[in-house]
Amino acid sequence: MRASRFFISTLKEAPADAEIVSHQLMMRAGMIKRLGSGIYTYMPMGLRVIRKVEAIVREEMNAAAAIELLMPLVQPAELWQETGRWDKMGPELMRVKDRHGRDFAIQPTSEEVITDVVRSEIKSYRQLPLNFYHIQTKFRDERRPRFGLMRGREFTMKDAYSFDRDLAGMQASYKVMYDAYTRIFNRFGLKFRAVAADNGAIGGTGSHEFHVIASTGEDALVYCPTSDYAANMEAAEALPLAAARPAATEALVKASTPNATKCEQVAELLGLPLSRTVKTIALTVDHEQDGKVTRQYFMLLLRGDHELNEVKVGKVPGLAAHRFSTEAEILEVYGCVPGYLGPIGTKAPVTVVADRTVANMADFVCGANDAGFHYTGANWGRDALEPALVADLRNVVEGDASPDGKGVLAIERGIEVGHVFQLGTAYSESMKATFLDENGKPAPLQMGCYGIGITRILGAAIEQNFDDKGIIWPTALAPFELVLCPMGMDRSELVKAETEQLYAQAQAAGIDVIVDDRGLRPGAMFADWELIGVPHRVVIGERGLKEGNLEYQGRRDTEATAVPLADIIPFIKGKLAA
Amino acid sequence: MRASRFFISTLKEAPADAEIVSHQLMMRAGMIKRLGSGIYTYMPMGLRVIRKVEAIVREEMNAAAAIELLMPLVQPAELWQETGRWDKMGPELMRVKDRHGRDFAIQPTSEEVITDVVRSEIKSYRQLPLNFYHIQTKFRDERRPRFGLMRGREFTMKDAYSFDRDLAGMQASYKVMYDAYTRIFNRFGLKFRAVAADNGAIGGTGSHEFHVIASTGEDALVYCPTSDYAANMEAAEALPLAAARPAATEALVKASTPNATKCEQVAELLGLPLSRTVKTIALTVDHEQDGKVTRQYFMLLLRGDHELNEVKVGKVPGLAAHRFSTEAEILEVYGCVPGYLGPIGTKAPVTVVADRTVANMADFVCGANDAGFHYTGANWGRDALEPALVADLRNVVEGDASPDGKGVLAIERGIEVGHVFQLGTAYSESMKATFLDENGKPAPLQMGCYGIGITRILGAAIEQNFDDKGIIWPTALAPFELVLCPMGMDRSELVKAETEQLYAQAQAAGIDVIVDDRGLRPGAMFADWELIGVPHRVVIGERGLKEGNLEYQGRRDTEATAVPLADIIPFIKGKLAA
Repeated sequence: MRASRFFISTLKEAPADAEIVSHQLMMRAGMIKRLGSGIYTYMPMGLRVIRKVEAIVREEMNAAAAIELLMPLVQPAELWQETGRWDKMGPELMRVKDRHGRDFAIQPTSEEVITDVVRSEIKSYRQLPLNFYHIQTKFRDERRPRFGLMRGREFTMKDAYSFDRDLAGMQASYKVMYDAYTRIFNRFGLKFRAVAADNGAIGGTGSHEFHVIASTGEDALVYCPTSDYAANMEAAEALPLAAARPAATEALVKASTPNATKCEQVAELLGLPLSRTVKTIALTVDHEQDGKVTRQYFMLLLRGDHELNEVKVGKVPGLAAHRFSTEAEILEVYGCVPGYLGPIGTKAPVTVVADRTVANMADFVCGANDAGFHYTGANWGRDALEPALVADLRNVVEGDASPDGKGVLAIERGIEVGHVFQLGTAYSESMKATFLDENGKPAPLQMGCYGIGITRILGAAIEQNFDDKGIIWPTALAPFELVLCPMGMDRSELVKAETEQLYAQAQAAGIDVIVDDRGLRPGAMFADWELIGVPHRVVIGERGLKEGNLEYQGRRDTEATAVPLADIIPFIKGKLAA
Repeated sequence: MRASRFFISTLKEAPADAEIVSHQLMMRAGMIKRLGSGIYTYMPMGLRVIRKVEAIVREEMNAAAAIELLMPLVQPAELWQETGRWDKMGPELMRVKDRHGRDFAIQPTSEEVITDVVRSEIKSYRQLPLNFYHIQTKFRDERRPRFGLMRGREFTMKDAYSFDRDLAGMQASYKVMYDAYTRIFNRFGLKFRAVAADNGAIGGTGSHEFHVIASTGEDALVYCPTSDYAANMEAAEALPLAAARPAATEALVKASTPNATKCEQVAELLGLPLSRTVKTIALTVDHEQDGKVTRQYFMLLLRGDHELNEVKVGKVPGLAAHRFSTEAEILEVYGCVPGYLGPIGTKAPVTVVADRTVANMADFVCGANDAGFHYTGANWGRDALEPALVADLRNVVEGDASPDGKGVLAIERGIEVGHVFQLGTAYSESMKATFLDENGKPAPLQMGCYGIGITRILGAAIEQNFDDKGIIWPTALAPFELVLCPMGMDRSELVKAETEQLYAQAQAAGIDVIVDDRGLRPGAMFADWELIGVPHRVVIGERGLKEGNLEYQGRRDTEATAVPLADIIPFIKGKLAA
């Protein structure tokens, strides 16, 4: 490519609404252009990166025997009604009526359509397994679009869907996709981590998220450096901090703790470590039957320094549809204002649910169910009834024991860019997508789904790879692998001739090269390419040429290296292969 | 590709709603699958063809220095309001509100967005010319979607937009695109014709349509076999059939023509050729000012055997916004019922507009402005006032003189698949997209736009190339160039080994090959590939192999040719290069 025939548009300053570095740098490098909130035009420079991402994804999907098709963007509401998602999904599902008043969804994902395709195409177990994928524009009407391509409304996604005859087959298909994703992210040249994830409301039997590691990532990734355990925060299991409950050593004392409704305040007031305190969270579950609502009350107990994990709470038996109790409910049920609740004296109809760590605590501090008072030296059995339920309710923290028993947990930040999901038969059952098994009996298809956020990869790659000059693309994703920067091409016939020859040689060697023939001053030219993040740069200058040399500088290098003219192509090829 | 790892799904019968052969064959060959009215999933076999179309378009666009980007599908209404198209476009523009109630269009085309991109990016004439294109999903909410991909609602289109500093520059950019389109359609291997087209309501200075020739085409293409004149029916100029008006030879006679309101009936009743009659069309133009409507009346005259061309009528001075007069208006203005109107005695306030041919007629037959009567022997000047206006009002017919004076016109049918358009400054002026010229003065950008209906190409290619067995793809568009059909691969080690070797050789030779390893019977296997339309087929059978031969058959061949095993790859390469 010649820069004079391409479109390069860089900015000194990022627009004010670009909050994070990848958004700022993509705007400054002219990769994207804002059309509306969360809606971007992919400019020529950005589109080249997207195409490189797509090509790698496509190659690995094909190699994994997934078959490409293309499903429509505008999808009839009827299919979404069959699975119930037309009602279940909130305003993030964009809905539109056609000229005849019929309802359609602008697709955020295509489970319904692929299941509809497959239910009419698959008749027999002999046709299985099958895996279909497409790379398509999607729309999700985010409440608060931001961060450029990281949380846009219109975006590009690869979604694949596998169909199997049984659970074992589906899990094998899942493994094939998991491995393909691992190859894909390795080929991108990004540091990433696959973590076990919660299956969420959709059910199913397992899922993993693929995260690009970046200190700015929104998600906390939990892993064990000495084993292969890895999970996201929602799914990472917290073991009890003590294996067994110690014996009581203190007497129960009711302490005055006026205006101390938080554990931090109580610990400070009493001069005790926060880890000796227990906090109480009051939940309500509403049951409606025949128009009459009955309520169930739960008291959750966590160690004062721990964080509640809402996903885990939802998995406690009876708590799938919980909410926080209102102040009025608390007053009525506990006879006490919030901030002073505790398990001592708490009994039916309240169900006490203790976190695993709390269940093994002794001599702890808790609310006295009396405004302005806490107990110290509280103990299970002696002072409070044994908790009705013991469960994992909290987020893990660094240093917790790994659930696999092979070390302690570490936490890092990541950006979710892929998700593989064992769907099971949720969609095939609601949409009656069956096949005839070996005995000629209809059975629901076992499904998996597999997504990669194509455009999000760009943002994540930048969050991981940038410096104060701009983007540092991994070679596999860079809009160009190599930029040739001639110095004074218009003044020096020698520079011009050598540049043209080198350009031709690089192209012949299969290098994705751009020659900057715009005639800019060196400073402006270098600043552009450092901002855009092309990984390899060769400067062609008259002085160097007279000595038979060119100047090579890698994007992460602090200074240039002189390379003999005759060696430059093999030298670059070596760098690209590294 | 191995058929066992691909998805092939053929049907014996096309669904009842498939009216035309391309729609029927695409459904039967498993290329598309209907999701809703005018909305299709592109199945793996069909997507391969789409990708081949896209690749050729992309290569030629890039070679013509057009720069690829990707504009969003969901576009803010504000831009469409700037150009007035938000109101002007009818329900074919699909509109949607986001969660905040803001209006958006699902793009049918991207003039507004590209003009918005360019107005913020282009500052100086030094940045021009520029040409941006994208290949993107579009949506047009057709009133009556049909014909499969030929008139779908969701479709894929390549649209390019050129920006120049002046008219001459824009026309040069237009010529570059015209030539690129010619190369593209040649590379597709389709018979096509570029015809001058009317610019329509959008204005501008010129446009051409590219049509794939097919007897089933919806459009009539007018061309001169002995010159390079070509236009669509709307734009093809009709010269007067006689160069000058002959002298009157008959006396004016008022003939009784009861119940003969059509020229055909009058000619039959009077025993005269239809070409001696003149038909009358009464039009009204409404002028509204200060809430008061005034009306202007026009009488259009055509020879009885000619067809009115509405586009030409719209270009007659004063007739841009015409409508057909109501029966009440006709009774009031002409004092006569429709079917008996004529120019004799017709005067102000009616304006008589004669087609060029009618203006040069003598001794003609026309309505007598008296119910049940026509005149014969009517003549201009002597009997009727000379027409106030003479204009080209009719469709040309085969045998008409070519407007370039170089022969006579022929007509064939075509399917519009491309359109190049000189937009001029219509969009840049309404959206204030200006640049600074050499004198530092702002000037509106001169624009062109250039579309190719990517998915429509599939339908058009099939309408031109099919037989009773199925589709006959031109090699450049075929989902696969070559299919290998082994006979009894599971029974014969020899067949299996030779098939594998040939498959590897074909791949190594860069041939897009599929091996049918599904284990079907020969009849079913051949029927599939003839239906799908793969242009080259090689059968590997044990008997032939023992004689050292394979059986080659081209899709249009009536019988197979034995080709020595050693020669087959060069033989196929030769066929592909042909």
